[in-house]
Amino acid sequence: MKQRLLIDMDGVMADIYQQAINFEFAESGRLIQLEEVNGKDEIVAFPNAKRHVREKGFFREAPVIPDAQEVVKALYDSYDIFIVSAAMEFPNSLEEKYYWLEEHFPFISWRNIILCGSKVPVQGDILIDDHYKNLDPFKNRSLLFTQPHNINDDRGHERVNNWKEIAELLL
Amino acid sequence: MKQRLLIDMDGVMADIYQQAINFEFAESGRLIQLEEVNGKDEIVAFPNAKRHVREKGFFREAPVIPDAQEVVKALYDSYDIFIVSAAMEFPNSLEEKYYWLEEHFPFISWRNIILCGSKVPVQGDILIDDHYKNLDPFKNRSLLFTQPHNINDDRGHERVNNWKEIAELLL
Repeated sequence: MKQRLLIDMDGVMADIYQQAINFEFAESGRLIQLEEVNGKDEIVAFPNAKRHVREKGFFREAPVIPDAQEVVKALYDSYDIFIVSAAMEFPNSLEEKYYWLEEHFPFISWRNIILCGSKVPVQGDILIDDHYKNLDPFKNRSLLFTQPHNINDDRGHERVNNWKEIAELLL
Repeated sequence: MKQRLLIDMDGVMADIYQQAINFEFAESGRLIQLEEVNGKDEIVAFPNAKRHVREKGFFREAPVIPDAQEVVKALYDSYDIFIVSAAMEFPNSLEEKYYWLEEHFPFISWRNIILCGSKVPVQGDILIDDHYKNLDPFKNRSLLFTQPHNINDDRGHERVNNWKEIAELLL
């Protein structure tokens, strides 16, 4: 029986930080540096993001986080993989996320995609996520994917800094 | 601690049978009677439904199953309710389902909606569903909502014929 591996999208597969920087730059011409947002909650770091995430293309055009495609593909045979994204707050993101996955991760079946609000009812053996609110209530192995907002505290989760480290741990 | 109650949408909250009948009638003028589809798989009963479910409005304009609104509202305070719908096969349905819920069940938070492919990773104490493929692998209490396709076999699940019976069992 394969282990069920749950993988978050935003901040783990999709580079939402870069996208927030891109949208802020397009709007105001201000180029936010990653260093200035370290340790800050995303809403504090990107005050206009609350609007930007509701704009067309924010999720659909997000860049892929380096090595995510290769490593998820390599993990796909060994694990029962489910993509679990807290998308429901932004209903405009639902289709965008589906088609983003279809474009960049075409080997992932629609059967293995979960778009939700709270992730609490979704159970698995391993969760890779960048948010404490998802990792803290998770009962099994929890991997904290490094993003500027979580850089100061592991809260007892296993930290992974990039997909190469995930490959080393799980392959 | 409240029990977590998972509720399916199609065939439990949304009257997908009536909608399939409506779409067939609009297309061919043939009025399918519920009696003639009893015991048949939905794909056999509604041969054009595979196309119709991908048409605009199929899910958005579906009628609500009688008493679903009143009973779900009554259950909402006593249970930790999650709406769990296998929507991912039809990406056009994702937004339609979200806005259908917003219109007919405005008291349900976006936090409590899960749109997925397979429901296997979604855990709860009780599941109300009309499909064996969702109920059979479910580990806890499983309620089979009567629809023509499941009328001949309970497969060991508790059968509920309508929302009034659900209210009697769970309230």
